[in-house]
Amino acid sequence: MSRIVTVAAAQLGAIQKDDSRQAVVRRMIDLMDEAKRQGADLVVYPELALTTFFPRWYHEDRAEADHWFEREMPNAATGSLFARAREHGMAMSFGFAEITPEGRHFNTSILVERDGTITGRYRKVHLPGHDEHDPERTHQHLEKRYFEPGDLGFPAWRMLGGVVGMCICNDRRWPETWRVLGLQGVELVVLGFNTPSVNSQKGAEGLEKRMFHHKLSLQAGAYQNSTWVVAVAKAGTEDGHHLMGGTCIVSPDGEIVAEIAHEDDGIVVHPCDLDATIFGKETIFDFKRHRRIEHYGPITAQAGVITPK
Amino acid sequence: MSRIVTVAAAQLGAIQKDDSRQAVVRRMIDLMDEAKRQGADLVVYPELALTTFFPRWYHEDRAEADHWFEREMPNAATGSLFARAREHGMAMSFGFAEITPEGRHFNTSILVERDGTITGRYRKVHLPGHDEHDPERTHQHLEKRYFEPGDLGFPAWRMLGGVVGMCICNDRRWPETWRVLGLQGVELVVLGFNTPSVNSQKGAEGLEKRMFHHKLSLQAGAYQNSTWVVAVAKAGTEDGHHLMGGTCIVSPDGEIVAEIAHEDDGIVVHPCDLDATIFGKETIFDFKRHRRIEHYGPITAQAGVITPK
Repeated sequence: MSRIVTVAAAQLGAIQKDDSRQAVVRRMIDLMDEAKRQGADLVVYPELALTTFFPRWYHEDRAEADHWFEREMPNAATGSLFARAREHGMAMSFGFAEITPEGRHFNTSILVERDGTITGRYRKVHLPGHDEHDPERTHQHLEKRYFEPGDLGFPAWRMLGGVVGMCICNDRRWPETWRVLGLQGVELVVLGFNTPSVNSQKGAEGLEKRMFHHKLSLQAGAYQNSTWVVAVAKAGTEDGHHLMGGTCIVSPDGEIVAEIAHEDDGIVVHPCDLDATIFGKETIFDFKRHRRIEHYGPITAQAGVITPK
Repeated sequence: MSRIVTVAAAQLGAIQKDDSRQAVVRRMIDLMDEAKRQGADLVVYPELALTTFFPRWYHEDRAEADHWFEREMPNAATGSLFARAREHGMAMSFGFAEITPEGRHFNTSILVERDGTITGRYRKVHLPGHDEHDPERTHQHLEKRYFEPGDLGFPAWRMLGGVVGMCICNDRRWPETWRVLGLQGVELVVLGFNTPSVNSQKGAEGLEKRMFHHKLSLQAGAYQNSTWVVAVAKAGTEDGHHLMGGTCIVSPDGEIVAEIAHEDDGIVVHPCDLDATIFGKETIFDFKRHRRIEHYGPITAQAGVITPK
């Protein structure tokens, strides 16, 4: 039986501070309709898909950012998105800021089945940036202020005939993310990102190098765990702050097989053959045969560096 | 105080089955002399630098391979190499097959100080290949037959004003290798490799993709741990079996800053500023601030894959 999952990576261009969720959802539905025309089984949207990247603004009172968060999902603003996905029989994934009933704040993404069931929920573990206003940065990146680190680990789910996992943005730079997913036999990892094109602590770094680091992390994660990767940007200039593009689909061999070169709303579609993950998983990355966990202790025993004497 | 370590990556061309260790050591000394002329503080040679890549041959009696192993280091064949390094005041690293006094077999590399002291010893943890003759492969890769997995973990040492670590060949494809070194604050990782240009289980893969995977692994390891990486090939055609080149030096930003494009004996030299590792280690890869070890459990708890239900 074929295990080809046709995936649409649905990039969103900029979302301005004043754009309503309803307006964004209309854009998402347009992309979904185009994905359907191109035969997609799954459409993947970015991190914080419903709003601008609000952690760039400092509020002394954190609760002033609460209006960017969703208290339930689906909700009034996204009901039409879920309805259209069900109508198309299309699975989907997107990210949003979540407030739990207990009042906890997470940077979250979900996996939704073709029938509208929310199968998977992931809460971003590796929050970049800082939690207090930092006058030494050219711009603020306050994810550590507005979100708690995810409390769900890196789960994977059986879906679309394979094993599917998620991560979000900065998680992609951490090999631990990929390995915990790989140890569940993941065959498709979907992730969204909002990545400023300027390093707030090293302006000279430049967009080209930041794009290189982005792709390097995706490609290494895909190759070293023999999995498809679908990475989707929110791109363009949001209220004067530029987010880089770089939406792409990476094969289990680590090759970029499809990408979007612009920074607007748009999709790129690729048929991902989940069976293409098997060769790597059974040979060079046959974990059971090759991994030597007796020598990996420090990875889970210590968070920070301990230098040799 | 400047912490620039000028490193020579000293690639060796093919070593044939009948080449003596003495002949190889003469070639290594020639490279060392050239490294000295170019101002090197450290010269790095490949994995199994003293012999051909013998794990390509199957012996029913494993002891028939013992003549490829060294029982002590330095020894009669390598004494002149150690003497020349001391004379130049140059540190060095090279790999060799090691038999311990207890008769254990390892794929080993060492770090030798400028004064000739052996500061560091590493035994390859991630042995690729197989341990019995495999008629389905186009060629044999019997590292699991002739070597035990290393028993020393991934240590790092204070040397040359910085923190230096080693790994060997296939170790570079495993993010665990890099992370255990990174958790010791490593600033320079040296490694040698003997990588067949043909995948014995997937001939169609091709040299170009194998070179891509090689560099991808080095670049991700360097970037994600903010360390210099010096990777040195034994290259060329050994008794009819082709080993790829790809000797290169990678910056803590993950960029290849120097490489060798041929497959013969030769060096490439680069001044590695260990202070260039600091920015990454203190910002995006400030492990203590960003790593969430409570979610990494499976990495050390299980070797193989456990798929979701």
